[in-house]
Amino acid sequence: MTIFGAIEAGGTKFVCAVGSSGGGSLRTTTIPTRDPDGTFADVEAFFRSAADLGPLAGLGIASFGPVGVDPALPQYGRILATPKPGWEGTDMIARARDFLDVPIGLDTDVNAAALAEIAAIGGGLRHLAYVTVGTGIGVGLVSAGRTVHGIGHPEAGHIPVRRHPAHGDFAGLCPFHGDCLEGLAAGPAVAAAWDITPSHIPHDHPFWDVEASYLAQLCASLFLTTGPERIVLGGGVMKQERLLPLIRARTLDLLGGYVHALRTIEDMERTIVPPACGEPSGLVGAFLLAEDAAA
Amino acid sequence: MTIFGAIEAGGTKFVCAVGSSGGGSLRTTTIPTRDPDGTFADVEAFFRSAADLGPLAGLGIASFGPVGVDPALPQYGRILATPKPGWEGTDMIARARDFLDVPIGLDTDVNAAALAEIAAIGGGLRHLAYVTVGTGIGVGLVSAGRTVHGIGHPEAGHIPVRRHPAHGDFAGLCPFHGDCLEGLAAGPAVAAAWDITPSHIPHDHPFWDVEASYLAQLCASLFLTTGPERIVLGGGVMKQERLLPLIRARTLDLLGGYVHALRTIEDMERTIVPPACGEPSGLVGAFLLAEDAAA
Repeated sequence: MTIFGAIEAGGTKFVCAVGSSGGGSLRTTTIPTRDPDGTFADVEAFFRSAADLGPLAGLGIASFGPVGVDPALPQYGRILATPKPGWEGTDMIARARDFLDVPIGLDTDVNAAALAEIAAIGGGLRHLAYVTVGTGIGVGLVSAGRTVHGIGHPEAGHIPVRRHPAHGDFAGLCPFHGDCLEGLAAGPAVAAAWDITPSHIPHDHPFWDVEASYLAQLCASLFLTTGPERIVLGGGVMKQERLLPLIRARTLDLLGGYVHALRTIEDMERTIVPPACGEPSGLVGAFLLAEDAAA
Repeated sequence: MTIFGAIEAGGTKFVCAVGSSGGGSLRTTTIPTRDPDGTFADVEAFFRSAADLGPLAGLGIASFGPVGVDPALPQYGRILATPKPGWEGTDMIARARDFLDVPIGLDTDVNAAALAEIAAIGGGLRHLAYVTVGTGIGVGLVSAGRTVHGIGHPEAGHIPVRRHPAHGDFAGLCPFHGDCLEGLAAGPAVAAAWDITPSHIPHDHPFWDVEASYLAQLCASLFLTTGPERIVLGGGVMKQERLLPLIRARTLDLLGGYVHALRTIEDMERTIVPPACGEPSGLVGAFLLAEDAAA
């Protein structure tokens, strides 16, 4: 069996694994994210210790962002402007190549998760958006079977949105944009705007309508821009299970019957969905990046 | 010399040509759009009369929308829901194949224009958005060198936007969404909202700030979603030359320094640009579609 390495590089932890997208992980470890030297020393130790499993045919890195994703540019594989101490300019690919001389694929954690969701849902899907609503709002995009890169990678969590009147004068928490989508609707913004306990939010609390209205604007904009066949909504905030049907209804309302394939609530139920990937999707996506790099 | 056919199929006119994207048009005609039978009878007559130029290697159709663009679906090449009498369900490809048995490529007029702008700008661009602001707002997208299709084709002219306070209670003109981008910022909305003569709008009129604020939201959303290397702004409304620098400044403001490559007004001047394609870009794009279909 051909095996690969996978790194899901996050701001709080690095998850490393050896295995494959289809066969799962044979061995994994979780490393707390500190400075690059310390973190990558542990990553190297893990892969060296896993050498008994056999040689790796490739490595995939699903990285936190912003990160250079265009192989044609000098910043490919490097962490760009970030508030995380010590990480700006870190070359994720060079760090890994120091101890693993194999083909390396790299993309954002959310683009990798989008690839993993495409694989998990199956059925020949080619266009998908993966959205995680947690401490931030991350968006990964697959169009025509490939992750979307342009002048950077997708950052649609930061699009401008119409403010909900019930949010009053809440300024939003995004350090760059104030009241962009992430500034209004990510977990910390929810906590700052409302005095609510996540485990028990009253059904009549304005949170539901406010949060659904913002995430529906993202869904509508994505449908109208790249036209994903599925929008997968995950992350900590989406564990509020009442949100998903509210977002579907608001998105349907926003689209107003304009898009041929998105005219009924059944269309919304089919296209706006919770994650299907059982394992951590960023890690599965990292295996897919490794397999693509080795192909 | 290999020659191709091109049809730019618009709601008010069909422009037909024989030639190539590089060599230009050898012969063209403009046909007023009526019902499908009458219009295509004239299209057929043009191509039959142009037979003396030699056999065509392919045909490209740059069509008004909404139109099916996925070759895997039964509605491929068909006009979808449209208020234009008689056109809904019309199979553009079958109509053309009735008299031209050659490989046929089809895309939206704005996706075709995006291809034409990529070719006109040159320099190895792979990611571009083409926006036309006229009687409607159309958006064509090229990502990684290919036009973007998903569950439909891009319809980003209809994204929700933040209303500008100076627009007061203007309800917007979009029959589907009221105050979506097109409903607030396309030509008819400008005419309905303000009592202004397009040839002489006072410099202190609120139109400038209102219009720039809406189109800047589109630019920011596009940069944050598919990350085009260039956003080309064309169409009748953009003939107001003061708009372009205002849109650049507002987009820069909206992005707030978040995107690595888009941090200065010079970045905006390089990336938000007027059309570069000298000939009608939809027609040039139709030649490119023909050449791709024949390749």
